[in-house]
Amino acid sequence: MVKPKFGFMTEKNMCLLTDLYELTMADSYFRRGKNEETTFDLFVRSMPEHRNFLVCAGIEQILFYLENLRFTEQAIDYLKSLSIFSEGFLNFLKDFRFTGSVYAIPEGEIYFPREPVVRITAPRIEAQIVETFLLNTFNFQSAIASKAARVIIAAQGRGVVDFSARRDHGADAALKVARASFIAGCIGTSCTLAGMLYGIPVYGTMAHSYVMSFPTELDAFRAFVEDFPNNSILLIDTYDTIQGARHAVIVAKEMEQKGRRLKGVRLDSGDIVKLSKQVRQILDEAGLGYVKIFASGDLNEYKIKALLEQGAPIDFFGVGTEMGVSKDAPALGGVYKLSEDDRGPRIKLSSGKVTLPGKKQVYRVVENGRMKKDIITLETEKPEEKNVYPLLIKVMEKGKICSELPDLKAIRDRFLERLNMLPDELKAITEEKEYPVELGRELSALTEKLIQEYRRIEMST
Amino acid sequence: MVKPKFGFMTEKNMCLLTDLYELTMADSYFRRGKNEETTFDLFVRSMPEHRNFLVCAGIEQILFYLENLRFTEQAIDYLKSLSIFSEGFLNFLKDFRFTGSVYAIPEGEIYFPREPVVRITAPRIEAQIVETFLLNTFNFQSAIASKAARVIIAAQGRGVVDFSARRDHGADAALKVARASFIAGCIGTSCTLAGMLYGIPVYGTMAHSYVMSFPTELDAFRAFVEDFPNNSILLIDTYDTIQGARHAVIVAKEMEQKGRRLKGVRLDSGDIVKLSKQVRQILDEAGLGYVKIFASGDLNEYKIKALLEQGAPIDFFGVGTEMGVSKDAPALGGVYKLSEDDRGPRIKLSSGKVTLPGKKQVYRVVENGRMKKDIITLETEKPEEKNVYPLLIKVMEKGKICSELPDLKAIRDRFLERLNMLPDELKAITEEKEYPVELGRELSALTEKLIQEYRRIEMST
Repeated sequence: MVKPKFGFMTEKNMCLLTDLYELTMADSYFRRGKNEETTFDLFVRSMPEHRNFLVCAGIEQILFYLENLRFTEQAIDYLKSLSIFSEGFLNFLKDFRFTGSVYAIPEGEIYFPREPVVRITAPRIEAQIVETFLLNTFNFQSAIASKAARVIIAAQGRGVVDFSARRDHGADAALKVARASFIAGCIGTSCTLAGMLYGIPVYGTMAHSYVMSFPTELDAFRAFVEDFPNNSILLIDTYDTIQGARHAVIVAKEMEQKGRRLKGVRLDSGDIVKLSKQVRQILDEAGLGYVKIFASGDLNEYKIKALLEQGAPIDFFGVGTEMGVSKDAPALGGVYKLSEDDRGPRIKLSSGKVTLPGKKQVYRVVENGRMKKDIITLETEKPEEKNVYPLLIKVMEKGKICSELPDLKAIRDRFLERLNMLPDELKAITEEKEYPVELGRELSALTEKLIQEYRRIEMST
Repeated sequence: MVKPKFGFMTEKNMCLLTDLYELTMADSYFRRGKNEETTFDLFVRSMPEHRNFLVCAGIEQILFYLENLRFTEQAIDYLKSLSIFSEGFLNFLKDFRFTGSVYAIPEGEIYFPREPVVRITAPRIEAQIVETFLLNTFNFQSAIASKAARVIIAAQGRGVVDFSARRDHGADAALKVARASFIAGCIGTSCTLAGMLYGIPVYGTMAHSYVMSFPTELDAFRAFVEDFPNNSILLIDTYDTIQGARHAVIVAKEMEQKGRRLKGVRLDSGDIVKLSKQVRQILDEAGLGYVKIFASGDLNEYKIKALLEQGAPIDFFGVGTEMGVSKDAPALGGVYKLSEDDRGPRIKLSSGKVTLPGKKQVYRVVENGRMKKDIITLETEKPEEKNVYPLLIKVMEKGKICSELPDLKAIRDRFLERLNMLPDELKAITEEKEYPVELGRELSALTEKLIQEYRRIEMST
């Protein structure tokens, strides 16, 4: 009988969370002694649909991976069983360590396409092997943080809670959606494990099945507030929302007699604009102005914007599926490309996919407290503009983290501060606007020069 | 300094991969001794965009979870720190075991909306606590298997390899996409860890950076086939695809002199229809009819269909992003609803979301080897039709797996067999067709009766 398995990725086996070709190419480099220093850039080629800006997330997990990457005996035995790797390479993997240096844009920072977000300088084999993991980690967390940022903008200061665990793409996704959406300004998550592992505040209300497990809705409400006197948010749409609101009033009044206060009610279906107004009125007429209205049910930034424009008196939003899978742009197309090796700056010319050569930096020009434009430069180049700050920070040296890592709360604060610096037109939910990203003079000249050179090589081969 | 962490879900902490409200409701049930036997159904409410059928996947992971679910000391300490749970409940969790029975549609089987895919009968607290994990696991794997099935149909028998790891939603997603897409007929994956954990065949070619790491493309090709004489697929679009094809011919001819054969070439950019025809001609004219053409680069079922309709002579497809995130329908809306408790069959009536009451079975009517229609019945009800088979199989009894679990290859075989039974119109990639799913007579009558009863309760409350 087959033993059922979950198939966990763990600290020990994360070494194999890589495309097979990273390892075959690495073996070929190993056999040929091609292990000179290289520089690779992780960047997004173009803006995904419906996005005006992107939010950096996932760097901490990338650094954890790079610092802890080891090939276990089990992993090496598995690779050996494939009968494609050289004995020498498999031995080399036994003592493998990532020894490179890393520059990265800090988590919570806003960035744009073409800007290197992670810049790795390492012996070629090391730089190659880590590609898949870096892209998997960054593309996903940044996609979610960038989506969640839109939800936060749409909610105009009202609290947003991540309710997505049941629709996220597996276990790791449930954790990382909670993390990335918290970075982008959510106040917390329903995912308990994300609370334990990352210290993110956890939130919960009640389900329809709870209400249905009692003879009447009123019985269910009374039971719940008795058990959780300080944390009750009553789900009022199991049978009829208006009737549910009246039951919530009865219970809230009973609580007041014991010196307690009902925290809120939740709407999860129906015409939320109309129902939230009616429910607010019912609560207010009963003197329950302090009872909050929580809305959920397939929400996204477009629906939240519409709800608030129509005056829905909602205090909190629970957002699940659409944020957790970034439904309108579920994949971020980050890539990882060679930009320099022992022969100098390098460029790639496949149709429509030109890369920027050399070790680069990104400078952000700030004017009157607002982001004005970004300039991608060679590392050695300084922009002429005043009031600039560099986006890429050195975070790893010789395989060890060399920069103070901020905690999640500080990352979230950084994002909210940057959101204040973002030009208003880029905060639009429905209109697409482009932020200016320029190339520095020297980088432009180098790129042009290399394109000419490669055209010549191409002609001659 | 903050220590960087990955935040792994492991066998030990999977108990907390649950929404907080599952645990607060469970505590309330615990305090009130409301732990009678209940039945919950996991089902999909409606067909996602662009889908004509769904593929069951993720049951093995659900069974692993149910059989191994334990609350660790660390988890209980964390819950205690939230200061909302009763001491009695936290003690209860120490010895918690899932003791229920489970019926499930086998992995690889085709199913449709409203059909219970997993049916859990267990004490209420146990049935409640497992909801989030079951939905997270099932919704994702079934979404991917259902998407991958479309890619497999479009490829018309040509091999499809999962190339999605770098764009999947995190580490667990990379593993489960490999698994779910293999179930739906892919021949393998690029994700090495999925190879080790699930025994899925692993595939790889080479990257542009490999080609760029040598002075010339020809040098790169010669090096690679020397290192991997039996497994080389040469990426020919780094500089110029036609030139790349000519270089591949030179290398293949050199290999022939050593009695070896080049396995294939890969196209990853440009006008794939035109280029694949030109490359095929170049290869054929050199007597290299055996060298396969592998295509990749943002492919999906629509593009593959168009490529083959235009006569592109492609032998294998590498499909990444769009399959890995199920881009046109990234979330499957599976829900988990109470259908029976100690007071008998139960129904939920929130606006537009009526559930089916009671313990149910699903029968599939087969005619001339093809699926004709499905009938959802009460468990006690037998359909009149001949040539039916039940979809729900008992897989767990008193918390222990009680049914032979098939290995992945057998699951994949089951799916491919079912695909042969699927009516042709449901295999359409661009047209949406509905497969008939009926309710059995007794289930219909019970549903109608309960709707009437609830309307009465609603009026009177």
